[in-house]
Amino acid sequence: MEVNMDVHRSVPVLDWEPHLARRTAGMKSSAIRELLKLTQQPDVISFAGGLPASELFPIREVDEACRYILRTEGPKALQYSATEGHRPLKEYLATTMHKYGVPASAENILLTNGSQQALDLIGKIFLDPGDYVLTGSPTYLGAIQAWRAYQARFKTIPLDDDGMQVERLEEAYNAVVAETGRPPKFLYVLPNFHNPAGTTLPFERRDYLAEVATRLDLPVVEDDPYGELRYEGEDILPICTLIPERTIYLGTFSKTMTPGLRLGWIVCPEVLMQRFVQAKQGCDLHTGTFVQYIAADICQRGLLKPHVKRLREVYRERRDTMLDALAEFWPEGASWTHPHGGLFLWARVPEPLDTQELFHEAVREKVAYVPGINFYPNLDGGNNAMRLNFSYAQPELIVEGIRRLGNLLKRKLQGGD
Amino acid sequence: MEVNMDVHRSVPVLDWEPHLARRTAGMKSSAIRELLKLTQQPDVISFAGGLPASELFPIREVDEACRYILRTEGPKALQYSATEGHRPLKEYLATTMHKYGVPASAENILLTNGSQQALDLIGKIFLDPGDYVLTGSPTYLGAIQAWRAYQARFKTIPLDDDGMQVERLEEAYNAVVAETGRPPKFLYVLPNFHNPAGTTLPFERRDYLAEVATRLDLPVVEDDPYGELRYEGEDILPICTLIPERTIYLGTFSKTMTPGLRLGWIVCPEVLMQRFVQAKQGCDLHTGTFVQYIAADICQRGLLKPHVKRLREVYRERRDTMLDALAEFWPEGASWTHPHGGLFLWARVPEPLDTQELFHEAVREKVAYVPGINFYPNLDGGNNAMRLNFSYAQPELIVEGIRRLGNLLKRKLQGGD
Repeated sequence: MEVNMDVHRSVPVLDWEPHLARRTAGMKSSAIRELLKLTQQPDVISFAGGLPASELFPIREVDEACRYILRTEGPKALQYSATEGHRPLKEYLATTMHKYGVPASAENILLTNGSQQALDLIGKIFLDPGDYVLTGSPTYLGAIQAWRAYQARFKTIPLDDDGMQVERLEEAYNAVVAETGRPPKFLYVLPNFHNPAGTTLPFERRDYLAEVATRLDLPVVEDDPYGELRYEGEDILPICTLIPERTIYLGTFSKTMTPGLRLGWIVCPEVLMQRFVQAKQGCDLHTGTFVQYIAADICQRGLLKPHVKRLREVYRERRDTMLDALAEFWPEGASWTHPHGGLFLWARVPEPLDTQELFHEAVREKVAYVPGINFYPNLDGGNNAMRLNFSYAQPELIVEGIRRLGNLLKRKLQGGD
Repeated sequence: MEVNMDVHRSVPVLDWEPHLARRTAGMKSSAIRELLKLTQQPDVISFAGGLPASELFPIREVDEACRYILRTEGPKALQYSATEGHRPLKEYLATTMHKYGVPASAENILLTNGSQQALDLIGKIFLDPGDYVLTGSPTYLGAIQAWRAYQARFKTIPLDDDGMQVERLEEAYNAVVAETGRPPKFLYVLPNFHNPAGTTLPFERRDYLAEVATRLDLPVVEDDPYGELRYEGEDILPICTLIPERTIYLGTFSKTMTPGLRLGWIVCPEVLMQRFVQAKQGCDLHTGTFVQYIAADICQRGLLKPHVKRLREVYRERRDTMLDALAEFWPEGASWTHPHGGLFLWARVPEPLDTQELFHEAVREKVAYVPGINFYPNLDGGNNAMRLNFSYAQPELIVEGIRRLGNLLKRKLQGGD
């Protein structure tokens, strides 16, 4: 130890740019995560995040699970484990998803570090630079971010109040083939309680989508983080029940249990599983053993279902509160989706208001949302739209926040500033 | 729900190959993980894995941490959290690493899902297809696996019993420039208790390496999973203390606390941090909140240091047991490294024996190791070498396993089968 140990000495700053991979040019920090920093002042009512209500987390259930696991299986629960995931958890998921219509067995389920990792792994095994992904517009921001890192491009299919306009799927496919000479790599779809749009794809559209995907030999990524959080209507069959051979289905505990465990999963055709396992080994060896044991224990004791039932009640009330407040406080010409579940609705303000321009003014008024343009991978829409989250804030704050936004909109429409 | 819900119906098998990314051609399952499956019969004495001793895991400490966290900070500990990592944990790491010579602050530490994820993120921000990485031979298999997924190539620098022969670093660098017209992207080095070689790079070699890296403008990845598990001699300054401006330092709790939490970290120049954060957002949003709270609690209560002290005592004894058994039972002409710490030693069997060929015979004799060739990224060495882990098996099993291997080697040398 003969050299200068003064770690406070000034360190030269190198220029790292010439050393970086080309793909870093397309990698950006999530606009939402940057926005969220602005909205974290404690007096801002934020509809911007996508957070589940933390006061509803199953803390007692997690606590009991930790004690039980550490008492009975501590050495295993804290050791390295299989890349594929914890077998009892996979078996529970297979059984549950079977009931829900998803053709899963323990052999075609891979546990991931949240479903964001599933999106990354999909990018890793499917996307070469310049490849196209078909997706709705608007679409989930995390998917855009994951796949931009693989230098993907996006061809979009517009949504209406029933979700993706699937009759325009083939047109988008053909446009990609015409432009690049090769097909898009897959179609990304969020059929239930879409993030950000709050829409649900009717069965007829799923059926049509399945038919077109089969005819075009197009893989489908079905992202279903909110499927169990339905507040009205009946479950609709997932796409992967219709075309299991070509669907990669993504599930997660982030919205039904807690996000802080980081547990999601992939259900895919068995022939693909080895590819995902190889990719995941290189990424992080395996998903956390301890958190998988916790989730398995809570599931096996039958505690997840009553918990989700309770979440449905609370979130339904918050959704209704937001819908009522919108009707009461927002100006004529505004409109919004009526989500049957999930965490979000999509609101459109009257032209010519621009939600991006309004954002900072809203934060000054102590209320926040995410401007719609962030959900358009090609930045070609959403200027008069915003995503509103209704799961995180308490009902009285929802009313107050929507009122503040309504007042701001009315003032702007009257030409005030 | 009008369609066939019989999920046991046969599902057509598609040919996915034409849909996959080119990089999948280079992605393989870890040879070690495949080998490990063979060695998991309960009566096999396995020196093949790299597992810490599970009977030493700090189960009581984890249990206390879980209870305390869930009682006092449950809603935060189970919620989404910052990509950068849990601030109190980062502050603890910065303080600890400062003492150890690493110039870290909370601002230049990123928590990762085990240090395997750090390797993946490094690949993501540095490696374009065809890029070269400089690494020792042998080298850590997980790094090869992570970077092959980015279509990297490897130029190797041989190790001797003092680790990487750094005087050959510039020659390897020049060979890459001559072949490709551009420099290698970085140098990967495991200075302490190398996996698989068990070697430690002396200060003089670190100093020389730092000098050459600076002259060549070469970034350095310093992987240090075992640094705190030293059983003899004195700590040697990490490379990142010598050249903090160009070193990416990797640490982990997998060997000092438990691997099942999946917690590692990156220390890097602040100008690089934003790149890593962006890459990690796309990969998995953030590292598990709950497990970070657990680790922070154990660290803050001062429980990690006495635990590591205990690990050192036990592992030192196991290392000595293995060294003694090798001296007693192995034939003349065999040799092995004398690791000053860590989990592994590297043993060479007399020519012409081939450790790959011997492997299945060894498993039949109920003892297992990893054949050396697996640690050579270009498969150009290690044929008479093997990696032996001494942390997992109890001392009496270490003696018995080394005896069985010794008997097998002697029989083969005498031409028996």
